[in-house]
Amino acid sequence: MKALLILAHGSRKKESNDEVVKLAESLDRTENSGFGKVLCAFNQFSEPSAERQIDILAGLGATHITILPYFIAGGSHVTEDIPRLADEARQNHPGIDFKVTAHLGAFEGVKDLIMREVGV
Amino acid sequence: MKALLILAHGSRKKESNDEVVKLAESLDRTENSGFGKVLCAFNQFSEPSAERQIDILAGLGATHITILPYFIAGGSHVTEDIPRLADEARQNHPGIDFKVTAHLGAFEGVKDLIMREVGV
Repeated sequence: MKALLILAHGSRKKESNDEVVKLAESLDRTENSGFGKVLCAFNQFSEPSAERQIDILAGLGATHITILPYFIAGGSHVTEDIPRLADEARQNHPGIDFKVTAHLGAFEGVKDLIMREVGV
Repeated sequence: MKALLILAHGSRKKESNDEVVKLAESLDRTENSGFGKVLCAFNQFSEPSAERQIDILAGLGATHITILPYFIAGGSHVTEDIPRLADEARQNHPGIDFKVTAHLGAFEGVKDLIMREVGV
């Protein structure tokens, strides 16, 4: 089973984290996404942690976990913390194939998304 | 002239801010975007400020300025700081029509963007 983990910075504001939770739930409900399960996790200020969610996905039988750094730009969380977290996850779950994608802000489609949503 | 201001949180890391600068430059070069000028600004940790960029857009003859909060989720910058900044801009530039869009993470198309870029 292929799983997706949306990993966000996390905020002290619950409503802010709830936006990420809702996105993950919406993706999880999406038919034909190719992912058997979509969860989210937070680096800071909020639970659940990536480690906990990866354990849950492993328990659900995930064989591939794609980690999406849900960040605007590539600060130290993206360049250091998340790759380290993925390395630790590989050691803890040797039977699972982990992949870390580009962070959201680096996605090719961001420019088109902006033009579609705010274009005049 | 219609202008777009991409307003990001800003980071202490220059490379992180440079990603936003490059996005704004790319959008600025986009033909038929409907925007005569696209600039970016940062709330914290980096120049230029939104106030300075709005002054520049006013100097370029902007009649409409769309402010895009380039944020993943709606924390206090999105819910408080940016609306206040827009109100101040309206007072300082009464001849310009200011509009604040939803923040990036609230765009309808984010889910599809993720599915396209990380879908399996």
